[in-house]
Amino acid sequence: MKIPVVRDILEANERIARQNRELFDENRLLVINLMSAPGAGKTSLLERSIDALKDEISMGIIEGDIQSSQDAERVARKGVPAVQINTGGECHLDGNMIRDTFKDLDFKGLQLLVIENVGNLVCPAEFNMGEDYKIMMLSVTEGDDKPSKYPLMFRKSRVLLINKIDLLPYVDCSMERIEKESRRINPELTIFRISCKTGEGLKGWYSWLREQVNNKKK
Amino acid sequence: MKIPVVRDILEANERIARQNRELFDENRLLVINLMSAPGAGKTSLLERSIDALKDEISMGIIEGDIQSSQDAERVARKGVPAVQINTGGECHLDGNMIRDTFKDLDFKGLQLLVIENVGNLVCPAEFNMGEDYKIMMLSVTEGDDKPSKYPLMFRKSRVLLINKIDLLPYVDCSMERIEKESRRINPELTIFRISCKTGEGLKGWYSWLREQVNNKKK
Repeated sequence: MKIPVVRDILEANERIARQNRELFDENRLLVINLMSAPGAGKTSLLERSIDALKDEISMGIIEGDIQSSQDAERVARKGVPAVQINTGGECHLDGNMIRDTFKDLDFKGLQLLVIENVGNLVCPAEFNMGEDYKIMMLSVTEGDDKPSKYPLMFRKSRVLLINKIDLLPYVDCSMERIEKESRRINPELTIFRISCKTGEGLKGWYSWLREQVNNKKK
Repeated sequence: MKIPVVRDILEANERIARQNRELFDENRLLVINLMSAPGAGKTSLLERSIDALKDEISMGIIEGDIQSSQDAERVARKGVPAVQINTGGECHLDGNMIRDTFKDLDFKGLQLLVIENVGNLVCPAEFNMGEDYKIMMLSVTEGDDKPSKYPLMFRKSRVLLINKIDLLPYVDCSMERIEKESRRINPELTIFRISCKTGEGLKGWYSWLREQVNNKKK
């Protein structure tokens, strides 16, 4: 009885996600869905990316959290339009929640919309929202066994950002193992090793993002 | 349509959890449900706890993961009976999955059963399995804003283990903020600051566990 219900929810979500995507495409808006475990550094990445790119790319942010608006406040302080979704218990964002923000976020003038999902390595990967790309972040403090334990998110993502490389000297984590196992699950994965604390490795990420925004403009 | 279905699932789960609990109580078995975000250090805590306590407390472990049996192999190497549950996509364990392990895990002679949940700060807190206590772990690398962002798990837990304190010099994380916000959500919370890497602070946790096992014996 449980499985058909879940399938219905996923199918209904797919329909809404496709409608969202059509709207994003009409507006030539690049949309990325940023996912990770809690505390991997998604909001820090956004703060860095806004500082680096806001003069050349007009962007908006949707923040997803169970509760609180701390993340939207953090990115709004950087001077970009931000909307907070409180899921009120739900462990992921879905297409409908994104559609509900359209009244609060005028994306007519935007080139890039970043949706920061709820911190969770599991469920967010199952729910499309109409995004162009899923981007996932893993921090080295979480350990190098995560690709084989949470394969779906690695399989669905276009980019893997390995964050907190400044902490590598203090943790037992093999970058080679993360990269090897991630690529075994998803050979197409683009991987950047970064530190949102020191800024190391972020130029490659900015270039990738710039390129996708330009491609979507055409 | 969605909410009633979820309620049915939760109600059905509660019934099974109560049945599990009766069986645990009949056997004077202390059962704890260990939860955290991915990579916070649950399995490392188990390895440490087994080494410290296995000569005085007979224990068994149930490992919950989406996929893979790496965690069960890690704890089995320590010489305790271990069963791996692969949820096959589900982001949490539930009462039924635990009931299904009873054929593989003879807990007649056991005093302590530790259930390591799927790494996820959200959904596991909603599903009882018949355990005596929920125990949660937060690592300092996840940041000090987690209590207000994921309040349910903090509210439902009896103990909060703050792990990876050996990394405090290298991260921006206020222990005071974590403890203050956690206690605002749950004034009854017992908190231990620990490092599963260095062993710091673990004696308090072992004493707590020993005491609960003794109480359950009576």
